[in-house]
Amino acid sequence: MAKIMKGAPVAAGINEGTRVRAAALREKGVVPTLAIVRVGEKDADAAYERGAMKRCAALGVEVRNVLLPEDVPEEALLGTVRDLNEDPLVHGVLIFRPLPRHIHDEAVRAALAPEKDVDGITDGSLAGVFTGSGRGFCPCTAQSVVEILDHYGVDCAGKRAVVLGRSLVIGKPVSQLLLARNATVTVCHTRTRDLASETRRAEILVAAVGHAGAVTGGHVSPGQVIVDVGINTDGEGRLVGDVDLPAVEPVAAAVTPTPGGVGAVTTAVLARHTVEAAERMNNIM
Amino acid sequence: MAKIMKGAPVAAGINEGTRVRAAALREKGVVPTLAIVRVGEKDADAAYERGAMKRCAALGVEVRNVLLPEDVPEEALLGTVRDLNEDPLVHGVLIFRPLPRHIHDEAVRAALAPEKDVDGITDGSLAGVFTGSGRGFCPCTAQSVVEILDHYGVDCAGKRAVVLGRSLVIGKPVSQLLLARNATVTVCHTRTRDLASETRRAEILVAAVGHAGAVTGGHVSPGQVIVDVGINTDGEGRLVGDVDLPAVEPVAAAVTPTPGGVGAVTTAVLARHTVEAAERMNNIM
Repeated sequence: MAKIMKGAPVAAGINEGTRVRAAALREKGVVPTLAIVRVGEKDADAAYERGAMKRCAALGVEVRNVLLPEDVPEEALLGTVRDLNEDPLVHGVLIFRPLPRHIHDEAVRAALAPEKDVDGITDGSLAGVFTGSGRGFCPCTAQSVVEILDHYGVDCAGKRAVVLGRSLVIGKPVSQLLLARNATVTVCHTRTRDLASETRRAEILVAAVGHAGAVTGGHVSPGQVIVDVGINTDGEGRLVGDVDLPAVEPVAAAVTPTPGGVGAVTTAVLARHTVEAAERMNNIM
Repeated sequence: MAKIMKGAPVAAGINEGTRVRAAALREKGVVPTLAIVRVGEKDADAAYERGAMKRCAALGVEVRNVLLPEDVPEEALLGTVRDLNEDPLVHGVLIFRPLPRHIHDEAVRAALAPEKDVDGITDGSLAGVFTGSGRGFCPCTAQSVVEILDHYGVDCAGKRAVVLGRSLVIGKPVSQLLLARNATVTVCHTRTRDLASETRRAEILVAAVGHAGAVTGGHVSPGQVIVDVGINTDGEGRLVGDVDLPAVEPVAAAVTPTPGGVGAVTTAVLARHTVEAAERMNNIM
């Protein structure tokens, strides 16, 4: 049976470092602060926000909530983002997306200062991920995938890694992170032919498709390490990943659970990025 | 025997459009102009420059040569780049690299205005390639690879494409262009284990390794389309690609020659990018 790679100990390891660095910043009079911008009242966003606030507080990272109505004019949202850019007491900005339809996502992404872009949504951050320059920040969920691999001692170098999905939030950045770790990386997507034969070749499989049961018994092979990024609800309203866990568990070497896998790591990465942003802004490294 | 996919007809097709667009710009009083910045006297750079000038002239694209001594101080080079950024009569800037060792490549890349970055070296251009936003410009050599595939009617959708090499100039941007064309893309590199078994699976193989004979009979399989990006010299000083042409020709379905393949297309792409930059700057689309 596959080893279950839980996210909690990964997050704990990250948090340990974050707590120390946040304390060091506070001693220098810098309170690492994350602004969370939420437009409208989506339950899932509000729940994530509550969790992030609680975890950040425990780490010494301040959270400032900015809640805007669902029908906020685009110009007002952009103004809010620009104010946060200029506020020296704010080091990181998280903007919940997708935004309401009347708002141009691209305009909002372009408005955010790259040095405060702790969830990697700006072109500056994405260029940094692509070039490996270390500028900006990687999207937190993508970073969480490799944090899990690192924590559980999975050496990517020379391994065949297959990424399912090519979104800018997960698939594309994860593929670059795996490449930087010297994996041989294949990106599969909706147009991939004979998907199962691609995924079965993987030594490391990252599923970021966004629908339940996308990866099942026929997609996996013995010895694989599987990271499940999907967060979906099944017919009975339960949280499930992209991976059919009961089907792959007897075959794979290791797999992340959902919930309790990648999702349990993202806020730890977010808090660490905020502390890093505060360090960079104050020239403390 | 493999079909030989020559670059010349691909370039001719591109140039046809460029000539028309350049003429339309000139009718509106805009002379599309490319500045070529060369530091020192490398023979290969000078040869490329001469070729580019000749081709650009035939297309109605003006070239302005900026030649700086090998020992030019970094600040002076950066000043030159900034002047070109601000010059309204210059639409595209090509900077020969690698630059001499005393100059920070990154500083030069950061100094160039993204809207004039017709060879895709800035973060702005690379972010555009990564996100698929269409902002900036793709590196000309990477773009040339897909221009060849398009010209010879190779449909990438759903195909297994394998890219050998992960440089920012070719490997990484080509992989994104192939992904945008819905190929299932694998990036291989020096750390890839059992390279031949990866490359044999390819339906489209792009070789951008940078040494002669990197791809030989054992790496290929029947029906493959191979694009050879490498430009190397063999023991006798002859120009050769990464692909051992006599060895793969009996096996592959199609392959680009070297010289006369990808290299024959890059200046056509460069000229088109310059015209595009001039159109964008003058709001002509």
